[in-house]
Parts: sequence; C-alpha cells; structure tokens
Amino acid sequence: MLIVHALAEVYGCQAIIEDAAKLVEAAKTAAAAVGARTVGEFQVKYEPQGLTIAVFLAESHIIITTWPEYQLALIDVLMCNSEMDYNQVVRQIREQISPDGHLVMHTVPRNIAASP
Amino acid sequence: MLIVHALAEVYGCQAIIEDAAKLVEAAKTAAAAVGARTVGEFQVKYEPQGLTIAVFLAESHIIITTWPEYQLALIDVLMCNSEMDYNQVVRQIREQISPDGHLVMHTVPRNIAASP
Repeated sequence: MLIVHALAEVYGCQAIIEDAAKLVEAAKTAAAAVGARTVGEFQVKYEPQGLTIAVFLAESHIIITTWPEYQLALIDVLMCNSEMDYNQVVRQIREQISPDGHLVMHTVPRNIAASP
Repeated sequence: MLIVHALAEVYGCQAIIEDAAKLVEAAKTAAAAVGARTVGEFQVKYEPQGLTIAVFLAESHIIITTWPEYQLALIDVLMCNSEMDYNQVVRQIREQISPDGHLVMHTVPRNIAASP
C-alpha cells in the first residue's frame, strides 16, 4: 500500500501562527472534514517565538511548525487511510493561516508493506 | 535557510517496534547524540497493533510510526539546526529496531525563509 506523506511550506502567514490553540483547532477541524479522528494533541512553544503543534489521528498525524519571524508555517500530514484527501487537509489549514500566501507542496510516497 | 526533512521506511523490524517506551528511548538517545534537546514526548497505541511515538525537540521533532504486521517502521526527523546530522539520527534509531533490514530514505529540502 502506498500512502502519501504531504509536506507543505506556507509563506505569508498571519498572526494566527503564534496561537497554538487556534492552530490545533485548525488541524483538528481539517482532519475531521476528511473523516479522520483525533486521538491526541501536543504543543511546544519555542523561545523567543515559534510553535510546533501536533494532532495525532487514528490515521496518523498532522504537525504544524511555525517561524513567525518569517511568517512561515510547515504543515506535515501523514494519513494511513489513502481515501482521505491530504490535499484537502493542507488546503483547509492554509485557508486559516495564509489564504493568499504562497504554498510549496512536497508529496512523498511511503510504501507500507513487508519489503520495499 | 534550507533544512532537510528526513523520512525513512525501515523494513524487517524486530519486536521492539511494539514497545513504545523503548522507541521513545531510542529516539531520545539518537537526538541527544547529535546535540538536540528533548522538550516533550507523546505516544499513541493503535488497535489491534501499531504505534506512533513523537519526541519533540528544541530543534523540532522525531516521529516513529510502526506497522508490526509488516515489521515496518517509518522514521521522520525534522531538525531546524542544519549542523545536526539527521543521517546519524536515522542510523542510530535503525540500529535499535532493524540492524539488518532494508532502509529507504527520502530527504525533502524545506526552505525556511520569508518567501519561496
């Protein structure tokens, strides 16, 4: 089974990327919209600025790491249910943090099997 | 600044991939060996099997997701200090879980800047 690990850089982010609770909410809402189920969350605040928030799913995880000094957020989405639309998850989070900013997306196929 | 997001599939894993505490310890030890500092950890156990463990670092994070039914682990390493050797982190974790198994590594450059 091939699943896709989606890694996005989102530029031109708004102040929401300094608000851990709102980022967690954005990730959970985006996950729910594709049918994923949140089973845990975690957040790290860096000094003097920057956050990592993680939302753990029954289907793996969403992580957002922010660099407010660059108005930059990295969004990582790994969902082991290939019917769930990772593009929709990234798009929906992006709408909350940088509706007009530039997005660079990397998609890495990961081979879930007993051998390569 | 370009940093590398390392994503590895490790095949042929041993039973340690069903032991969350040992995986966390392996990730923390590997992080410490390159000078990274652990600031948090989290684990999810799936039914009937499989784990996600996350070790959050002052320099970002290490995540290991396991599929015991395939003897497979995914290792994700993002470290925002480009002087820290992500290859060493992956190699050191791999030695703990599958010293002789096949490893497939993806390296994704991520552009930490105000624009792409």
